[in-house]
Amino acid sequence: MAVSATEADVEAMCPYRLVLEHVTSRWGVLILIELMDRPYRFSELRRAVSGYGRGVSEKMLTQTLQTLERDGLIHRDAHPVIPPRVDYSLTDLGREAAEQVRGLAVWTEKRMGDVEKARQVYDETKNRA
Amino acid sequence: MAVSATEADVEAMCPYRLVLEHVTSRWGVLILIELMDRPYRFSELRRAVSGYGRGVSEKMLTQTLQTLERDGLIHRDAHPVIPPRVDYSLTDLGREAAEQVRGLAVWTEKRMGDVEKARQVYDETKNRA
Repeated sequence: MAVSATEADVEAMCPYRLVLEHVTSRWGVLILIELMDRPYRFSELRRAVSGYGRGVSEKMLTQTLQTLERDGLIHRDAHPVIPPRVDYSLTDLGREAAEQVRGLAVWTEKRMGDVEKARQVYDETKNRA
Repeated sequence: MAVSATEADVEAMCPYRLVLEHVTSRWGVLILIELMDRPYRFSELRRAVSGYGRGVSEKMLTQTLQTLERDGLIHRDAHPVIPPRVDYSLTDLGREAAEQVRGLAVWTEKRMGDVEKARQVYDETKNRA
């Protein structure tokens, strides 16, 4: 049975699932990993995470950063200068999350050869069938 | 700049990103974690992962299992019996992926209290603004 549930329903039933979805979201992963090095300004961060293949829109980056900020993983530091400057950095909690996510990313990169071999076998088998 | 790219483009530019997306997808995470215990039949697996809040459709579960099978993470074992019986289990590579993903899930569950506190502070600050 496919159940249609809102984000609020899921939060009530299984709250940690949503946080897991936030940190493993396409841009969440990249933002957390980039911020492990140092704080970034918005436009810098946008360029950095877009370097991984697909670009991220301003709107999507803003939404993702807000979600991670609300979860307490990212700190947003707006400097009262002209022109305005906003820095994003990891909180202590965010650094822990980033370390977990990086572990997964490093594993994936290391095992890519095995994945590619498996795909080749799978595709050959399908083509023969 | 938001770049529109197909899955094939991303695979060419940054192949491991896609695998990371597969293992961290909503159902990918849950399937990998469930299969750490033992092999599952399709309908059992569907019930097990649907217990986490949102239900998964047959079509979506089939697609996710095929993707993970093609990546070499899951083994699909079709028994030639009547009625047909299909078991899904982790490969050695899949067990490694599942361990990484479980680490992240365990961390998220452990830190949920901190996340909830952060959200409360964030929402109060927004409401005052």
